[in-house]
Amino acid sequence: MGSIGLVTPQHHHFSEPLPLQSGQQLADYTLACETYGTLNATRSNAVLVCHALNASHHVAGLDADGTRGWWDNLVGPGKPLDTDRFFVIGVNNPGSCFGSTGPMHRNPATGRAWGADFPVQTVEDWVDAQARLLTRLGIDRLAAVIGGSLGGMQALAWTLRHPTRLRHCIAIATAPNLSAQNIAFNEVARRAIVTDPDFHGGHFYEHGVVPQRGLRVARMIGHITYLAEDAMDSRFGRALKNGTLAYSTQEVEFQIESYLRHQGDKFSRYFDANTYLLITRALDYFDPAAGHGGDLARAFAHDPATRANRFLLVSFSTDWRFAPARSREIVKALVDNRIAVGYAEIDAPHGHDAFLLDDPRYHGVLRATFERIAAEGSA
Amino acid sequence: MGSIGLVTPQHHHFSEPLPLQSGQQLADYTLACETYGTLNATRSNAVLVCHALNASHHVAGLDADGTRGWWDNLVGPGKPLDTDRFFVIGVNNPGSCFGSTGPMHRNPATGRAWGADFPVQTVEDWVDAQARLLTRLGIDRLAAVIGGSLGGMQALAWTLRHPTRLRHCIAIATAPNLSAQNIAFNEVARRAIVTDPDFHGGHFYEHGVVPQRGLRVARMIGHITYLAEDAMDSRFGRALKNGTLAYSTQEVEFQIESYLRHQGDKFSRYFDANTYLLITRALDYFDPAAGHGGDLARAFAHDPATRANRFLLVSFSTDWRFAPARSREIVKALVDNRIAVGYAEIDAPHGHDAFLLDDPRYHGVLRATFERIAAEGSA
Repeated sequence: MGSIGLVTPQHHHFSEPLPLQSGQQLADYTLACETYGTLNATRSNAVLVCHALNASHHVAGLDADGTRGWWDNLVGPGKPLDTDRFFVIGVNNPGSCFGSTGPMHRNPATGRAWGADFPVQTVEDWVDAQARLLTRLGIDRLAAVIGGSLGGMQALAWTLRHPTRLRHCIAIATAPNLSAQNIAFNEVARRAIVTDPDFHGGHFYEHGVVPQRGLRVARMIGHITYLAEDAMDSRFGRALKNGTLAYSTQEVEFQIESYLRHQGDKFSRYFDANTYLLITRALDYFDPAAGHGGDLARAFAHDPATRANRFLLVSFSTDWRFAPARSREIVKALVDNRIAVGYAEIDAPHGHDAFLLDDPRYHGVLRATFERIAAEGSA
Repeated sequence: MGSIGLVTPQHHHFSEPLPLQSGQQLADYTLACETYGTLNATRSNAVLVCHALNASHHVAGLDADGTRGWWDNLVGPGKPLDTDRFFVIGVNNPGSCFGSTGPMHRNPATGRAWGADFPVQTVEDWVDAQARLLTRLGIDRLAAVIGGSLGGMQALAWTLRHPTRLRHCIAIATAPNLSAQNIAFNEVARRAIVTDPDFHGGHFYEHGVVPQRGLRVARMIGHITYLAEDAMDSRFGRALKNGTLAYSTQEVEFQIESYLRHQGDKFSRYFDANTYLLITRALDYFDPAAGHGGDLARAFAHDPATRANRFLLVSFSTDWRFAPARSREIVKALVDNRIAVGYAEIDAPHGHDAFLLDDPRYHGVLRATFERIAAEGSA
């Protein structure tokens, strides 16, 4: 299995306003994307990869800085999502901070950076923006949309908003909506950011500062929810950082503290605070059943074209953020509609983060799925 | 079942230094306490109640402000811990912020408030301070020590440090130590406080400010871990605060957000930031097995007097902070030593907070236990 090697992002500009779920619109925007592999003659082998909270269009290969894509273990020549067979597209969503139009860019109405005034985005808005990008790329119908976590929500939303434009939906470690506890964790993270004095109501760019304190705390909270409790115990347990206790309330005593502080520091140096607010809100808002009296089965029954899509759901046994029970809710709603759905519940120790790792059973399921998709299409 | 009515705290001053686990000492200190009921002639009916993170010596009855004690549903005439039979003592631990010596008081060495320089406290230190208070009150041996969560750790520590001075240990919703995940949540909360610019390295008293931003976030994080996920869903679910979405990253959208913000605000107005750091550290440090090669059974085997103590452990099915499995570790260590132990695992929906509520099965177990204790002693 090789690597894709050096990849160069493309930037596509869209001047037609994008109507948003909020009633606002994105007047004028750019989407950053990367593509891997070759679009076949019938344009039938395209696979869209949707990113989650802190990722981007840089899915595979190495960028100009030598940074490996966030799903490079999955996407490449000979890999489960095989770029020798598929034309794979990664796109950065609007509101994010990796090249597509976001809160750090100029608001044409004011001439200042958008900051906290950037229009609130939903999963559905992102899917609509992605659909326009595919049209631009000359792709009418995707072989598949795949994503994990928030990316999985986008894959599901594709089947509800543009069902004729994809054949397969692969939604991993996801949920039909956030639980109250999920929203609660997002809200604490947002409060940490918004109440950081360096946030300046979201207009910190103009002050030459970044609300790093808030971002650090937000990331630490998030990180706890991405890891399985048992895996944390196996990896860190109660191991001390320096062998003996310092008896200090502020110094690092335990290795887990050191690890979390490091994760928080790293994140606060590259991630945009307004993007964090926007993306956690998109997570909070996603709830396809809401427009159907809370009945997810009715959401999937709404459009006959949705019922022609084929689904694969994957969950991980130790994921307590989006537990297997949440995936099973989706599977049940599909089965209730006699929609074709496969479901794999992977017994993996890594919690929510497992969707980014290369557990052999997990990757085996995806490899087999993409082989089937390739065989049925002309990929 | 009546109420205790108005109660007045006592303040006991200790001029003999208290040696601490850290190697430091508490040179001179005051303990606030309340007592309910009457000490019998043989001084054998005393029960000590140990508090958890944000509680105090005000266990039952009404204080001068009309505030009801935090365990008033358990302690009073005719209640499970019946003050017609038992002499009940509540004590505020050193380092707390409700009347005992703490970081907001004057450090005799500097003339300033202690702030972050207040000596770090451990569960064992608190138990030693409590033991001195009992001596002051003329009580040689307690009928029982009872506590929930961090209070349960104190009850356990009593049997290891002063086993001849109690007969029964009642430890509820507790754990033999914190998991890496437990420590992680504490650490995030501490970072939120310490990085609040109003913390001023712990000396905020002198600046006339309080690190309210940090305290709010700390409390919101804590609160999520006290509640069961299902109970949060039942109570709040995805219900909106104002009926419709505002599409805002900063406004309250969901009721759970409103609830958490309210809890955070309330807490930040009455709780001391340095106390929060100290008490979460005491939680982190507690690990009686650590001095015995990580073997909890050996910790309980160390002193023959410990084996003469009788134990009751109680856990709650939906408590994910200190899950039933953690109580079972303690039960197993006791059983391995053939120490008398009862264990009740209560199927209650309220998560960790259940120990403060009056679930009838839970209170039934405690009532029966105290009736047996009263019958065997002269209470």
